[in-house]
Amino acid sequence: MSKNILLLPGDGIGTEIMAEVEAIIAWMNAAGIADFATDKGLVGGAAYDAHKVSISEEDMAKATAADAILFGAVGGPKWADVPYEHRPEAGLLRLRKDLDLFANLRPAICYPALADASSLKREVVEGLDILIVRELTGGTYFGSPKEIVTLENGQKRAVDTQVYTTFEIERIVRVAFELARTRNNKVFSAEKHNVMRSGVLWKEVVTRVHAEEYADVGLEHILADNCAMQLVRRPKQFDVIVTDNLFGDILSDAAAMLTGSLGMLPSASLGAPDATTGSRKALYEPVHGSAPDITGKGVANPIAMIGSLAMALRYSFGMIEAAEKLDGAIATTLASGLRTGDIAARASPRSARRRWAPRCSRP
Amino acid sequence: MSKNILLLPGDGIGTEIMAEVEAIIAWMNAAGIADFATDKGLVGGAAYDAHKVSISEEDMAKATAADAILFGAVGGPKWADVPYEHRPEAGLLRLRKDLDLFANLRPAICYPALADASSLKREVVEGLDILIVRELTGGTYFGSPKEIVTLENGQKRAVDTQVYTTFEIERIVRVAFELARTRNNKVFSAEKHNVMRSGVLWKEVVTRVHAEEYADVGLEHILADNCAMQLVRRPKQFDVIVTDNLFGDILSDAAAMLTGSLGMLPSASLGAPDATTGSRKALYEPVHGSAPDITGKGVANPIAMIGSLAMALRYSFGMIEAAEKLDGAIATTLASGLRTGDIAARASPRSARRRWAPRCSRP
Ligand SMILES: CC(C)[C@H](C(=O)O)[C@@H](O)C(=O)O
Ligand SMILES: CC(C)[C@H](C(=O)O)[C@@H](O)C(=O)O
Repeated sequence: MSKNILLLPGDGIGTEIMAEVEAIIAWMNAAGIADFATDKGLVGGAAYDAHKVSISEEDMAKATAADAILFGAVGGPKWADVPYEHRPEAGLLRLRKDLDLFANLRPAICYPALADASSLKREVVEGLDILIVRELTGGTYFGSPKEIVTLENGQKRAVDTQVYTTFEIERIVRVAFELARTRNNKVFSAEKHNVMRSGVLWKEVVTRVHAEEYADVGLEHILADNCAMQLVRRPKQFDVIVTDNLFGDILSDAAAMLTGSLGMLPSASLGAPDATTGSRKALYEPVHGSAPDITGKGVANPIAMIGSLAMALRYSFGMIEAAEKLDGAIATTLASGLRTGDIAARASPRSARRRWAPRCSRP
Repeated sequence: MSKNILLLPGDGIGTEIMAEVEAIIAWMNAAGIADFATDKGLVGGAAYDAHKVSISEEDMAKATAADAILFGAVGGPKWADVPYEHRPEAGLLRLRKDLDLFANLRPAICYPALADASSLKREVVEGLDILIVRELTGGTYFGSPKEIVTLENGQKRAVDTQVYTTFEIERIVRVAFELARTRNNKVFSAEKHNVMRSGVLWKEVVTRVHAEEYADVGLEHILADNCAMQLVRRPKQFDVIVTDNLFGDILSDAAAMLTGSLGMLPSASLGAPDATTGSRKALYEPVHGSAPDITGKGVANPIAMIGSLAMALRYSFGMIEAAEKLDGAIATTLASGLRTGDIAARASPRSARRRWAPRCSRP
């Protein structure tokens, strides 16, 4: 029976990179490797232009029914002034929250062929393989009150509320421990227990779940600020990092950059497995954004989007072999020397000139 | 008339690095360059051991009366189990809050002599000179509710509250714009307005203050996650970064690491100038922590603490020339090749061996 994939290209380069993935899906269907039925929807600015909302109820219904969602990117200067509740990001946040996609997996892998594209020294990043497990449906992103009020004296007062419950922390750290067992068996849990009560509860729950269920996995607690520092200093000390929604947002962007480019990193946002069918809601998206500055130029790096399809094959369809083949194809392509501009080596001026200068010089 | 400096060495290497600064103060007094009267107090674990609180009322009174405070570092595994309200960090947070030290200045400078100690490529960090202006008395650190409650079903629920008012944002961004005018005249304001209401207000206030009072200064708004990424990718694009308490905590630690070491970076935490006297409360401290792992070994890098004294000379005592001389002495010492272990070059194994191998090899 065919599986349903909903494509939500979104805005900017989202459309361009999604086209690459559609071509791969069509090829897999034609080759008899898969039987995917795809449908399309609008999200972000594109949805606002069409329906004056960041995602329509019709597309939310499609998303809820789909076996997996492939998401491009949202946003851009064009929608800077739309009402706050309809801003492009709201569509993405609603998908995450309404589908309860609490577990965001963000691998940061530095391909050997790309170690020179990083701003870090080759020996610091070569062979890097980190997995950030970010809580995605709680914390500051969704807690209430979340408001701006005008005070009697005319001043405004803005409030965001970070909330975490035992249940929310338990389920995300279990995901991290399970994944660590399939990797190097080491989890770093990042919070600010020295300042935040949510950090105190986070550390307490992680410690207990570890002792009761995952004592075989290595665990280290690290302050989120120190984690940011260590990611820059000695990133290869990390295997799995589990953290909350806001810290995960920032730490995963820093980690992304270690690999040499914004354009390389896929992500998976997973719900809980259904108790009877075992299937889970899932959305796959590149970590990078909609890149309005390069939109329409045909230069966008599709690797993060293609890697997101590979994650879908792995986590939604159990097609491990096909996922490995797709990941392998990315590595082979890079090793062959093909590059988009974002991952061209940071060479010294001299070798850069050698690489890019036209063959014949001016007289 | 002599000026009062309160020394709060705190815990771990705090005592060791403070001793270096005491020697410099004594030398300045003897040389007739300054007339400082110093007093000492306890903070953090040291205060808890003596008084069962993270800072005593007596020392708070001294801090309030002092012309400037030099602060070492607090914390360590020894105090992991003290009651939360008396944890070592609480003493520091109380000093910041009660003295209303809202403006935290964190320069990140990469000395040419140290560019090789960084995990980043030399050309990416050489000549780096960033100033992070972090709001220090608001946001998630101090908003209420801030609590852990046990629910009826036995689950716990932790809450932290991020609060910012117009007033709080105005006064910190003014500090950033003023400082930018003395530097490269460019401010990046980092927030998450796409997710947080406090980010929306932050961006709105920064935009207005800029238009009304600082239109001559360059201003760019940047999302905090992107800022973390750009700090790793191309840090030299930044001049002044202004941001909230929590983002400032994380971004400044990442920035610190760009310079090659935890041990290099001073900071100043300033209050508002008094309307009549013009003097302001101020606390100066290294960005690094108490480093229990190297405490007592005599290997701690005192540069961040000495640089903090230089900042005190500059911001509390108007001794610009002396501050420049002290900063110059740091640069000269580094250029002469002197190094603590944390800032020894990241050399290739071969040159490292050359550097560190004993003169005569074993037979
Ligand atoms: C687009 C934005 C709402 C989103 C976030 O903050 O989570 C993005 O930065 C991400 O990391 O997926
Ligand atoms: C010690 C801790 C409370 C403090 C903070 O989080 O502000 C530290 O990390 C800092 O950056 O000064």
